[in-house]
Amino acid sequence: MAFFKNMLFGGDYNPEQWPEEIWVEDMRILNLAKINSATINVFSWAQLQPDEETYDFSTLDKIVEMLTKHKYQIVLATSTAALPAWMSRRYPDVNRTDFEGRAHKFGQRHNACPNSPTFRKFSAKLAGKLGERYGHLENVVCWHISNEYGGNCYCENCAKEFRVWLKKKYHTIEALNKAWNMAFWGHTLYSWEDVVVPNALGDAIGTEKTAFAGLSIDYRRFMSDSILRNFTDEKAAIKQHDPKTAITTNLMGTFKDLDYFKWAKEMDIVSWDNYPSYDTPISLTAMRHDLMRGLKDGQSFMLMEQTPSQQNWQPYNSLKRPGQMKNMSYQAVAHGADTIQFFQLRRSVGACEKFHGAVIEHVGNEHTRVFRETAELGQELEKLGDTLLDAVTPAKVGIIFDWSNYWGLEYTSGPTIELQYVDQIHHYYQELFARNIDVDMVSINGDFEKYDLLIAPCLYMINQEQAQKIDAYVNNGGHFVTTMMSGLVDETDNVHLGGYPGPLKETLGIWVEEFDALPPEKTTQVVFNDGTVSDCRMLCDIIHPNTAEVLANYGKGEFYADTPVITRNQKGSGMAYYVGTMLSETGMKRLFDELLKALPIETFDLPEGIEWKTRVKENQTYHFLLNHKNEPVTVTVPTAGKELLTETALSGTIELAPFDVKIIAE
Amino acid sequence: MAFFKNMLFGGDYNPEQWPEEIWVEDMRILNLAKINSATINVFSWAQLQPDEETYDFSTLDKIVEMLTKHKYQIVLATSTAALPAWMSRRYPDVNRTDFEGRAHKFGQRHNACPNSPTFRKFSAKLAGKLGERYGHLENVVCWHISNEYGGNCYCENCAKEFRVWLKKKYHTIEALNKAWNMAFWGHTLYSWEDVVVPNALGDAIGTEKTAFAGLSIDYRRFMSDSILRNFTDEKAAIKQHDPKTAITTNLMGTFKDLDYFKWAKEMDIVSWDNYPSYDTPISLTAMRHDLMRGLKDGQSFMLMEQTPSQQNWQPYNSLKRPGQMKNMSYQAVAHGADTIQFFQLRRSVGACEKFHGAVIEHVGNEHTRVFRETAELGQELEKLGDTLLDAVTPAKVGIIFDWSNYWGLEYTSGPTIELQYVDQIHHYYQELFARNIDVDMVSINGDFEKYDLLIAPCLYMINQEQAQKIDAYVNNGGHFVTTMMSGLVDETDNVHLGGYPGPLKETLGIWVEEFDALPPEKTTQVVFNDGTVSDCRMLCDIIHPNTAEVLANYGKGEFYADTPVITRNQKGSGMAYYVGTMLSETGMKRLFDELLKALPIETFDLPEGIEWKTRVKENQTYHFLLNHKNEPVTVTVPTAGKELLTETALSGTIELAPFDVKIIAE
Amino acid sequence: MAFFKNMLFGGDYNPEQWPEEIWVEDMRILNLAKINSATINVFSWAQLQPDEETYDFSTLDKIVEMLTKHKYQIVLATSTAALPAWMSRRYPDVNRTDFEGRAHKFGQRHNACPNSPTFRKFSAKLAGKLGERYGHLENVVCWHISNEYGGNCYCENCAKEFRVWLKKKYHTIEALNKAWNMAFWGHTLYSWEDVVVPNALGDAIGTEKTAFAGLSIDYRRFMSDSILRNFTDEKAAIKQHDPKTAITTNLMGTFKDLDYFKWAKEMDIVSWDNYPSYDTPISLTAMRHDLMRGLKDGQSFMLMEQTPSQQNWQPYNSLKRPGQMKNMSYQAVAHGADTIQFFQLRRSVGACEKFHGAVIEHVGNEHTRVFRETAELGQELEKLGDTLLDAVTPAKVGIIFDWSNYWGLEYTSGPTIELQYVDQIHHYYQELFARNIDVDMVSINGDFEKYDLLIAPCLYMINQEQAQKIDAYVNNGGHFVTTMMSGLVDETDNVHLGGYPGPLKETLGIWVEEFDALPPEKTTQVVFNDGTVSDCRMLCDIIHPNTAEVLANYGKGEFYADTPVITRNQKGSGMAYYVGTMLSETGMKRLFDELLKALPIETFDLPEGIEWKTRVKENQTYHFLLNHKNEPVTVTVPTAGKELLTETALSGTIELAPFDVKIIAE
Repeated sequence: MAFFKNMLFGGDYNPEQWPEEIWVEDMRILNLAKINSATINVFSWAQLQPDEETYDFSTLDKIVEMLTKHKYQIVLATSTAALPAWMSRRYPDVNRTDFEGRAHKFGQRHNACPNSPTFRKFSAKLAGKLGERYGHLENVVCWHISNEYGGNCYCENCAKEFRVWLKKKYHTIEALNKAWNMAFWGHTLYSWEDVVVPNALGDAIGTEKTAFAGLSIDYRRFMSDSILRNFTDEKAAIKQHDPKTAITTNLMGTFKDLDYFKWAKEMDIVSWDNYPSYDTPISLTAMRHDLMRGLKDGQSFMLMEQTPSQQNWQPYNSLKRPGQMKNMSYQAVAHGADTIQFFQLRRSVGACEKFHGAVIEHVGNEHTRVFRETAELGQELEKLGDTLLDAVTPAKVGIIFDWSNYWGLEYTSGPTIELQYVDQIHHYYQELFARNIDVDMVSINGDFEKYDLLIAPCLYMINQEQAQKIDAYVNNGGHFVTTMMSGLVDETDNVHLGGYPGPLKETLGIWVEEFDALPPEKTTQVVFNDGTVSDCRMLCDIIHPNTAEVLANYGKGEFYADTPVITRNQKGSGMAYYVGTMLSETGMKRLFDELLKALPIETFDLPEGIEWKTRVKENQTYHFLLNHKNEPVTVTVPTAGKELLTETALSGTIELAPFDVKIIAE
Repeated sequence: MAFFKNMLFGGDYNPEQWPEEIWVEDMRILNLAKINSATINVFSWAQLQPDEETYDFSTLDKIVEMLTKHKYQIVLATSTAALPAWMSRRYPDVNRTDFEGRAHKFGQRHNACPNSPTFRKFSAKLAGKLGERYGHLENVVCWHISNEYGGNCYCENCAKEFRVWLKKKYHTIEALNKAWNMAFWGHTLYSWEDVVVPNALGDAIGTEKTAFAGLSIDYRRFMSDSILRNFTDEKAAIKQHDPKTAITTNLMGTFKDLDYFKWAKEMDIVSWDNYPSYDTPISLTAMRHDLMRGLKDGQSFMLMEQTPSQQNWQPYNSLKRPGQMKNMSYQAVAHGADTIQFFQLRRSVGACEKFHGAVIEHVGNEHTRVFRETAELGQELEKLGDTLLDAVTPAKVGIIFDWSNYWGLEYTSGPTIELQYVDQIHHYYQELFARNIDVDMVSINGDFEKYDLLIAPCLYMINQEQAQKIDAYVNNGGHFVTTMMSGLVDETDNVHLGGYPGPLKETLGIWVEEFDALPPEKTTQVVFNDGTVSDCRMLCDIIHPNTAEVLANYGKGEFYADTPVITRNQKGSGMAYYVGTMLSETGMKRLFDELLKALPIETFDLPEGIEWKTRVKENQTYHFLLNHKNEPVTVTVPTAGKELLTETALSGTIELAPFDVKIIAE
Repeated sequence: MAFFKNMLFGGDYNPEQWPEEIWVEDMRILNLAKINSATINVFSWAQLQPDEETYDFSTLDKIVEMLTKHKYQIVLATSTAALPAWMSRRYPDVNRTDFEGRAHKFGQRHNACPNSPTFRKFSAKLAGKLGERYGHLENVVCWHISNEYGGNCYCENCAKEFRVWLKKKYHTIEALNKAWNMAFWGHTLYSWEDVVVPNALGDAIGTEKTAFAGLSIDYRRFMSDSILRNFTDEKAAIKQHDPKTAITTNLMGTFKDLDYFKWAKEMDIVSWDNYPSYDTPISLTAMRHDLMRGLKDGQSFMLMEQTPSQQNWQPYNSLKRPGQMKNMSYQAVAHGADTIQFFQLRRSVGACEKFHGAVIEHVGNEHTRVFRETAELGQELEKLGDTLLDAVTPAKVGIIFDWSNYWGLEYTSGPTIELQYVDQIHHYYQELFARNIDVDMVSINGDFEKYDLLIAPCLYMINQEQAQKIDAYVNNGGHFVTTMMSGLVDETDNVHLGGYPGPLKETLGIWVEEFDALPPEKTTQVVFNDGTVSDCRMLCDIIHPNTAEVLANYGKGEFYADTPVITRNQKGSGMAYYVGTMLSETGMKRLFDELLKALPIETFDLPEGIEWKTRVKENQTYHFLLNHKNEPVTVTVPTAGKELLTETALSGTIELAPFDVKIIAE
């Protein structure tokens, strides 16, 4: 089921910030760019509800009316991502208490305590009123609840709710003590009241970790759940009046705070905001798109925000080069986006995002580079219509991404401060990206069977069932790869006793005795069986193969020279690989040559900077050929076909212009 | 009108810290150095007022008496820069609340909440008592209120006064919402009570900025005004008893917190503390002197503090090299100082400044290098007498320095974190310094007509009247230069719509469509019409000339290659230049060659490290020739004349000793 | 008197964290390694006292019983280093208030306010109960009070106790004002109530210093004393029931917070935890051992903790290389350890130290490298028995280490932020270490007469009596060396007036007029009388010799070129050296050649990485030959004899294996 009848093209629109005479110009100019939708009402709570008793929809009515008249589709936000000043002042419980233990006053956005009874009441009430008033409109095509959810609160209300959440999960205080290993450092609790939130006044180590990772991780889960309840509060209020229109909220890629797999279950469609920095690897953006598509198991997503030109909050806010915005828009489509939307349609006149790019710049007319590029894209999208909506990615490789692992790996103390979960995932993703292999980002609780190859870097936190599922996957013929820092702990960060990698030992056929952390100035070497030599760094596992064969040993340098570092275990009809260190580029290439040679996965060797992606819809296959370089690149098209944007046949060796994009119907 | 009858030579003197037997030695030793003045009573509040009811001037009486007897002139401070401990304890409202929201207790200095009713009452009362007791003394030649004013308070009293200040400025809450663009992020206020101070508990981003720059800038203005009211409170109390003696407070050069142009209107004479670090460019010190002179439109100032040898609070507190203190003292005079004063006359025995240099070192006698150099200077100054007092700088070039721009540029979000206001001003100043051209630092509300050339780097924040004044200046024949990040916003940081650089567009004859931020590792190039090539960095404006001619285009590298970067617009009988990037040295030299070639401004090409400055008094011209290098330099004297220190004729090519100084009466 | 009948070999053991079936395995495995002792009950307060009224020793009884049955010696801790949760909640006065002024809740360890009446009552009560219950057991061989004492509290109770402490020390508020030089910045106090704790809400500069170093240093002393009173509270309670067993607490080498010389007077035996980082110089570890031995004037100490393999809280937690743990254990013995103990015997299953090494790894058996190495060591120690217990180090060189100097030097403002006390001490220590000369670390109040050479780098803070003692030492024939930043201030950081280095001027025969701080990018040179040239950096004193002769002058570069930098003063029958800068390696070598050539101190020139140390027991001399390198090294044994571990004769030139250790009975 496609949510939209064509590709939504538009973005965030806040006309309440300027006089109505400008609205007329907005309609004229946006129409020139073939923009067909607007996201409105994202931060208007204070305007919609000037005090506790009063609701005033007059301005929003006018905006909706105008957009409707001009045939715009509307993504209607609920405005609850920023508290009204009067509410902050009158009901201080709506404000957050931060990691430092400081109760905040009015300010910023994304600022509501998720467990504030006042906030929960008022936010659901507003969402209900919006649902009632606008839910019946045909051009309200999507609800957008709040905005970029995240953050933490450590107030007394949160502490109380945390205790309720814990009681529900653990039932007894003894079970809680065991889960968090509270006997360590004599932290044994005898009452639920003894539970203290993990901030700087409690168990904090530094600005995020605590001495008890089990506590930190559970609090992170609790916060994710609490904020999700804010989302479902509003969702339920809307659905009462409008049960049909899809509901979303804009996510943020590999954002750490929220367990997006859990969230996605409550969302009708996933949407996200793509804000790479000038030096973000293109493969990392690709990975984030794939993750967003993976959240609902391959279902298309909305690109809710991107900048048409530059951002304002990066250290260095470079302009997107000519063609680059279009290139990045199509990259989103290639990975599963059914919409292309911008923050923002017109630049704000003041406040902290005034230097953030917009379709209509401060000059206020259509005679700008940015507008011209937007209009070109609009014309192309109009032509594409619904062609690509709801197409799917035929990936045969899955990479596990798991928020509990994200938190677990980064909240633990030792063995090295260099370990970053997203970096480790991307380290493997980029090897597949370089070979132009389609990849799904998969939940650890997802369906593995459809993949020929399943990769799980740093699968640090894993329970018995998850391990059994992986074992079954391998037994049934799957190829599975994992790495150092895997199989170590259970869901509350207690070590699986009996030898690393815990419940994965049998599947992998190895025992890891120790892991050595190398300081950043040190590397050592890996020698593959064929003699290939690669540097490795950061962590070096000391491995004893049981049933596994050895694919590579450490080279000279450390005391574990000539001991195994990469192993492969045949189990049932499948294979389980273990990589006991962080390989440099040579090693990664060599490893993937090995991994892929026995699998029916097609590799496309294209020049660096060229991306090739595939989507399939009703037996029609579409290929995307993207030049991410700001220079011409000569490339041989892997699959000939009809190019959709130019409506011409495409095959053989061609020159792609800088940032060029081809969409080929096979 | 000269304030002093000869050049004051002395400094901070705190005999209350040591026994009276040492006072006798002080008098003897200081007299050897020809020291003729002392600044006293800077931090003695606790001593003068041991409790709420009691005032005890007995020690101060003794000090004044002794200094009078020994014929010292006195700069009498009011002691209110550090709260007495009893007051902090008994009246907590006198203590500040910091950016983190923490209410402070007793400690440090410069610690009074400017809006504390208790502080205002007691500080004015003390100043009045001092005025009454000592104001009639002939040798009290200057009042020194408080010390190095600055800092912030975020307490409830400040919040209340801020609301009063805002009501006075904006009259309605609607006007306030518009000024700060509060519709953004739904921050609309419905009551003055909704205004929250911009600290970490409110709208903070990082440690200084907030999400609403308009709020931050207004709070900065409010703080500057509040603290200025502390100054005028005391000033009024003194003037009641002593209406004639000049009143000052010691400023701090390019210090960010206070709008010194506004302050200077309330000060009879400007004074400041010059504390360069070991690696501060000599041109930056020169610029700060010129700024201090500019505060009262060219009027001479007091050098209130400098160290005779070393500081204590820098990371690395190098000694001033032999001759360097004298060199730096004369540099102050060359730029407009009518006094040479030190912090401090005798080193403190303990507390955090005990390792700060003094005329009398811890050894306690006159047999030190530092003392000898001080005494040499004292003899020279005695000889100079009143010769240079009240002389003026005949500058034909003005550079605009504006605190609203300082705050605006540094409180905004984007386009690059590298932008620092003082750096940008100095980037232009140093080109003039290198050519030995006299420069005035001018208020944006100052008089431009006297300058042939007016330079305003990063004139980010500007209103219509200011823009009109600049336009008139150009029309009347002035040459005006401005740069990227100019003409962008109004006084509360709202963008001038209709295209950059806003109200300066017509004057400059250009439209700036976009600005690209380069990360620090990247540069691009500028090619002047004559082929000169220069690197440029940080920001690159994309410029459309309307009526302007193009002086330079971007070189190869970025997509805006071959588009204009430096332009010149003839308007009326003047010229308006725009520089759309940050040029490296080659480009700056080439630009200034261009700027100066048509103007009657004399350039002096002297060896690097040599400074040449001019002051004029009653038709007599004095030139200062300063060797800032710690090595001999051969130089041809630009203007022959009588050298005042040696009383010999000077002309032709001479060798200057390390740190040598010549003062030439033309 | 030896405290133990053989060398204790064991470590921290926390079986309460796991089920009793594992205890059986523990006994079996530990016995294999010849482990003969266990430190227990370190963090079990919450378990021992589940609420205010109830004490429950059942688990501890079982642990003690089991260990006794298996013939383990017990180091019995008192568990008071971590507060029970219920106590933190019910009696908030037990929690600390931090430097930021924030009152903490339950969390972390080492978290009790030392001046909390509640904590003092409950901790002493628990210690008494433990003493009563277990003090009579023969295999309880040592009491271990609390754990790694340190930290600060700034609560109201501490403020009150601080005022009491000050009254006792200074008697009058006038004396206090003088001691802290409170007249500076008008801080004069008129009431004890005016004293404010030196944290961020008071007089703080940065995160540790304050504007009044006298206040900071006294607060540091007060905290050290307050925490020491916690120790003596518990000690007294134990001694009531068990007056004979030795009592200790585990110190931390050069840890800054506590005056360990003062503490050691209250401890029966010193113990400490040795946790070098992967890049800690081996000489620094050696120095820390010597310091621990010096605390009780040469008495043997306990190595209470070290990791058998890796740590978890370092940035990069490298494994100890094969042989390295044994090598480091013997290094401890070579410097005076009578025990070898580990943290920990079995790895914790969860919480922040789960990745810290242990004798029994998570795999839970004896088949690990770490266990094998431990067992090897255990066998050797069993063989050594009591041979080395209580041996002493025959050092002829003493280095003064003094906590008041540590605090004074690092709390002062200026002349350079590079000054770190431990670095300066180690700078001199390492020269002696490189020559394999035995060194004692000595209290400034210690006995100097036994040393031929006494070195006191940066003896910044010194009183008249201390200076006189040094002078007497020199007069009596001692050789004394001190450096820049010496003799400057008295005990409360007030400068000794009359010229630097204050009360050491006569002894050294010099006057230091000024000190120049060089920024890190700058060095200058020292030229010895024989022409040897060395770089120097950081600080350069400008020195006038009175009676001293000049050993080296500054080389070219700065204005003090050709003036003295190293001097020697003959006084009585001794010599006093002054080194006015920080010498680089060449200069240090040259200096020590000079220092040593006239003294009867034997130097052993061995290859780099080889250490040679001596201990003497009842006229028997033992030498330790340690290869700290992870590679074989050929060395000529300085003294032939019987090697104790191999029981073979050793002499001549031998090859030491990587990390090899030889113990030679002469």
